[in-house]
Amino acid sequence: MIHELADVQTQNIGKNTSIWQFCVILNKAVIGSNCNICSNVFIENDVIIGNNVTIKNGVQIWDGITIEDDVFIGPNATFTNDFAPRSKQHPVEFSKTIIKKGASIGANSTLLCGLVVEEYSMIGAGSVVTKDIGKQELWFGNPAKHTGYICKCGKKCDASLICNECKERLR
Amino acid sequence: MIHELADVQTQNIGKNTSIWQFCVILNKAVIGSNCNICSNVFIENDVIIGNNVTIKNGVQIWDGITIEDDVFIGPNATFTNDFAPRSKQHPVEFSKTIIKKGASIGANSTLLCGLVVEEYSMIGAGSVVTKDIGKQELWFGNPAKHTGYICKCGKKCDASLICNECKERLR
Amino acid sequence: MIHELADVQTQNIGKNTSIWQFCVILNKAVIGSNCNICSNVFIENDVIIGNNVTIKNGVQIWDGITIEDDVFIGPNATFTNDFAPRSKQHPVEFSKTIIKKGASIGANSTLLCGLVVEEYSMIGAGSVVTKDIGKQELWFGNPAKHTGYICKCGKKCDASLICNECKERLR
Repeated sequence: MIHELADVQTQNIGKNTSIWQFCVILNKAVIGSNCNICSNVFIENDVIIGNNVTIKNGVQIWDGITIEDDVFIGPNATFTNDFAPRSKQHPVEFSKTIIKKGASIGANSTLLCGLVVEEYSMIGAGSVVTKDIGKQELWFGNPAKHTGYICKCGKKCDASLICNECKERLR
Repeated sequence: MIHELADVQTQNIGKNTSIWQFCVILNKAVIGSNCNICSNVFIENDVIIGNNVTIKNGVQIWDGITIEDDVFIGPNATFTNDFAPRSKQHPVEFSKTIIKKGASIGANSTLLCGLVVEEYSMIGAGSVVTKDIGKQELWFGNPAKHTGYICKCGKKCDASLICNECKERLR
Repeated sequence: MIHELADVQTQNIGKNTSIWQFCVILNKAVIGSNCNICSNVFIENDVIIGNNVTIKNGVQIWDGITIEDDVFIGPNATFTNDFAPRSKQHPVEFSKTIIKKGASIGANSTLLCGLVVEEYSMIGAGSVVTKDIGKQELWFGNPAKHTGYICKCGKKCDASLICNECKERLR
């Protein structure tokens, strides 16, 4: 479903993906299936987005950013692709950032560029991320710091990376 | 006034409320009278907004959020309703947040979910709010901390909750 | 180029300036030439914007804000013009903020009001700016602090304000 109030220029969009009002998506972006792209989102050209991804309102995905399957990006979360921007000075190549499978990027957080955010990690709301984030790590603050681990299900856990709740479900 | 460039699906909007360009308001939202909803605001379904409320540009009001009369919500202020979001995993019920009468939520601040923000409190711009906020309390920072008190008129005051300026006016 | 999906009410726009989808620009704003105003930007009336300015998506420029030539404003960067806002209480005059020639305002940063941001300074992504910023100074954090100097070219430098790279180019 592409809402009639969105300006979607790419044709590379998978099945069952919804794109809502007042989005702008440029013509070389690649977006998977079963995604939910909420209103007022902007997606540039050199962008690959996997399947089952949620991008909440007010987010921009710039050239050089890859988002794998099952990622959640909270509202007004803000990415960058130029470490020291000056108006009308374009870097030879934009910094690459990759958000890996299942990661969650908190609401209104800010990500510096050139980062790897590993699988099923979680970044707290309002954080400023300046470093790579490891697998299932929980980070928050400004600058964001590593404060614990989080299970794939979304519950806190220890470094074993499986929470008590999941263990019980697995029995 | 509902601007013709907004997508407003609810009919529960009070008198003299203005809704500006590129807003999206879903069909069960309830909005009072004399409100000003600026451009690029998104309001979900399970939302009640009182009278004389100002919501500046780029804000989203999610299911489970109640906003009482006379509240000011600054631009790009960001709410949440899921403490540990994962894409395509929806909680049984979203966390409730209530912003009480006369409170002011600073520009680009971030509010975690399940919070009570008491009457006439003020949250500084760019804050990350992780705790309940008491009546007429001033909080700011990341995480936001309680740093003083503020009068209903917007001036700083002590714990008596009435500023010198108001006292003079009352004489 | 004014995109047909923008609502641009001013006619004071210089040559070669692009204004993209879902922008709202009120009728007294003055905007120079060769600017790039990205999608979902809001510009109020009492605003002067110079030449060669980049304003990324999701930014609002309020009454009382002046932006000189060659300024870069990152995505979702948030300005203010009222130190202690209350709904429906308007100050006699809004606080003035000036962003001087060549300055860069980082993505998702927040600026309190009444500030002077000097020439070619740089504010890091996600910062909360509460003080005036000096010429070519680099500030970041919440609250933002002065952490160094930056060359006009965007490289870090010492208090001489010229980086090694520029020196080499000048030889």
